[in-house]
Amino acid sequence: MTEPVCRVVIVGGGFAGLNAAKVLGNVQGVEVTLLDSRNYHLFQPLLYQVAMAGLNPSDIASPIRSMLARYRNVRVLLDEVVTIDLPRRQVVTRDDPLPYDYLILACGTQHAYFGRDEWEPHAPGLKTLEQATEIRRRVLTAFEEAEKCTDDPERRRQLLTFVVVGGGPTGVELAGAIAEMSRFTLAHDFRSIDPRMSQVILVEGGARILGAFAEPLADNASRSLARLGVQVWTSCLVTSVDANGIEACEKSVPAATVIWAAGVEASPLGRGLGVPLDPQGRVHVERTLNIRGYPEVFVVGDQAHCLDEEGNPYPGLAPVALQQGRSAARNILRDLAGRPRREFSYLDKGMMAAIGRSKAVGQFRKMRFTGFIAWLAWLLVHIYYLTGFANRLMVVLQWGWSYLTFKRGARLITQPDWRLYKRGRSGDGR
Amino acid sequence: MTEPVCRVVIVGGGFAGLNAAKVLGNVQGVEVTLLDSRNYHLFQPLLYQVAMAGLNPSDIASPIRSMLARYRNVRVLLDEVVTIDLPRRQVVTRDDPLPYDYLILACGTQHAYFGRDEWEPHAPGLKTLEQATEIRRRVLTAFEEAEKCTDDPERRRQLLTFVVVGGGPTGVELAGAIAEMSRFTLAHDFRSIDPRMSQVILVEGGARILGAFAEPLADNASRSLARLGVQVWTSCLVTSVDANGIEACEKSVPAATVIWAAGVEASPLGRGLGVPLDPQGRVHVERTLNIRGYPEVFVVGDQAHCLDEEGNPYPGLAPVALQQGRSAARNILRDLAGRPRREFSYLDKGMMAAIGRSKAVGQFRKMRFTGFIAWLAWLLVHIYYLTGFANRLMVVLQWGWSYLTFKRGARLITQPDWRLYKRGRSGDGR
Repeated sequence: MTEPVCRVVIVGGGFAGLNAAKVLGNVQGVEVTLLDSRNYHLFQPLLYQVAMAGLNPSDIASPIRSMLARYRNVRVLLDEVVTIDLPRRQVVTRDDPLPYDYLILACGTQHAYFGRDEWEPHAPGLKTLEQATEIRRRVLTAFEEAEKCTDDPERRRQLLTFVVVGGGPTGVELAGAIAEMSRFTLAHDFRSIDPRMSQVILVEGGARILGAFAEPLADNASRSLARLGVQVWTSCLVTSVDANGIEACEKSVPAATVIWAAGVEASPLGRGLGVPLDPQGRVHVERTLNIRGYPEVFVVGDQAHCLDEEGNPYPGLAPVALQQGRSAARNILRDLAGRPRREFSYLDKGMMAAIGRSKAVGQFRKMRFTGFIAWLAWLLVHIYYLTGFANRLMVVLQWGWSYLTFKRGARLITQPDWRLYKRGRSGDGR
Repeated sequence: MTEPVCRVVIVGGGFAGLNAAKVLGNVQGVEVTLLDSRNYHLFQPLLYQVAMAGLNPSDIASPIRSMLARYRNVRVLLDEVVTIDLPRRQVVTRDDPLPYDYLILACGTQHAYFGRDEWEPHAPGLKTLEQATEIRRRVLTAFEEAEKCTDDPERRRQLLTFVVVGGGPTGVELAGAIAEMSRFTLAHDFRSIDPRMSQVILVEGGARILGAFAEPLADNASRSLARLGVQVWTSCLVTSVDANGIEACEKSVPAATVIWAAGVEASPLGRGLGVPLDPQGRVHVERTLNIRGYPEVFVVGDQAHCLDEEGNPYPGLAPVALQQGRSAARNILRDLAGRPRREFSYLDKGMMAAIGRSKAVGQFRKMRFTGFIAWLAWLLVHIYYLTGFANRLMVVLQWGWSYLTFKRGARLITQPDWRLYKRGRSGDGR
């Protein structure tokens, strides 16, 4: 006779949710349902490479369904969660509600505009593939427009000015990649403009970029950025963003392209729970990763506010999410085996940020790396963690190729969606 | 002293326009401007592979600008042509009008719905990358929906029914690829559905599919399709298309996904010219490829209606477009050298259609190929003609990989554009 089946519902197919599913996926008597509104797992650390036309969307994303195909107890559903009914232990979706014995929430974060949502259309964030391809479209289109704009130097200067708001790893990597692209990749393709005329400005509100990194590394990164021609403005708050550009530290900067890499907030799903949240909307969880008073509900990854041994919240890093997903799943297994739960403790995997195509900064516990060595380490780590061998192979080759040739594999400006149903006009000047 | 510069404007960066530009691009005293509304050249023969998640958009498209970077006399502009002013010899664009001494129109074709444009949203064509990724989204989403649809067998059957309208090479290749994908690629990824339950119907109005091919080849293709589980309905006219499916030969077929591969018409730009057009809107040109009465205006590729030695119009094939582009450009050079123009004569490169991932049919002059040999030939030819070494390399590897593993590299459902500005929610169930 078999014991009654334990129903585990996981919301979110990011690093945390995916790895929770893998721990539970082949366990007898456990039935896992993973919900996501996308059909793919996204390797976010390389998203900026898609935005900068260095990689294809599918190089950094793969279908959750096939990633979990080997795990026979896992059912993957493409669905939108409306709300969570904690008392009834149900996940309410667009379709039928899903009852659960255990729930693992791993919904990640989204960009926050500090209450200035009207800035969003003018300064897209970089959290989804759509945003990445949109940023790619804007950057490449700006160069195309500048090429045509032969009679208006001011407008051309505006078109060739790129502002990145936020000096965290994403902002640093974006700024470096734009500078690189304009200097090398595009340098020979244009006739009437010199892409080196382009201006890249990285705006950071804090006293220095890469606040989470050790100060010497941040300084090194600033120097590397400067060498690529990136202006780094620190202690500089953005006071306005519109179609013409930004205003920051009393200066008004005309810029056709503004990218938002500052500030995140947790998924709005948390607000519906009626449990304590931190200012960023992350759900407070105990060190066993479940919500106080709800032992059957775990919150993991960027969506969770979990304190470490020293009482500091864990940062929103991929390895943290990955380890928390596993840890929550293992606590469920401990319950089923009648063993006590374990508190989460993070095995530090370090932090890295790439700058252009040959430099990086990284820290791993007490160790610090800079320059080409750090970039090599960055490359190896990211390729290693990229899910799926095919992806890894493609990325290695694509990078090898663009490293040698300065070409960008994916430099396509795809049209906005309203043209989807317009008839085909490829190779057509109209 | 230098002779006065001759201004050549080329509209369209497809096979015809691109190759015309290459012939003229390094000639002393010629100044070429190539206009396209896209920044990339699209390798249309493989577009169906993108729609079927076998390839990435950037594998079959590369930026016109970098493809022509070596040709110093060529200026590439991303712009929309409003109209052509033949008397004034100007191309009127969204920006400044472009005067020309010679004009080469190579605007290609678009899908035609035989006056039933209301069908288009329910049955997208396959001419652009956006349409390809939209078709990909629809096909993959249908399977996801079917997976959730456990209680309504009729609805599920509708979700798993795929109709391809039009039995030309594109229709045949699409139908074969859908059948293949549902049988092999997706077979093991779903829990509650068996993708083999899916139904693929190829509807052709004519007496047989592949009308342009020799009859034995068409028969062979039909058999290969049948073996993949594709139903081929010939002499069957579609009388209605809506959100629920289609009506054809008195049958109403509930189908969630309908793809339009029937009938094309030339770019609307031709209508503005006030010169004779054929019923498909193609511009009648003399055998020297210029419009009668306008020796300085050439029309080439799918947009041109040009008669061969026997008085039959040339078919809309990539090699025809490529050769006509070169031929028109060479006639311009002959003018400049004071030599007589030459009439276009087509060097037959044959025709091919792939069926699934291991069969094809092809004919080359008197020779005919079928089965695996034809597929190998198809593979080699298409990889050879793919522009840019990097692309070729990627495609070979991606295909090699999916051939070995049945996996699809690019199986992503990217969201419609209205979500672009929605904040990032990757790895998020909401």
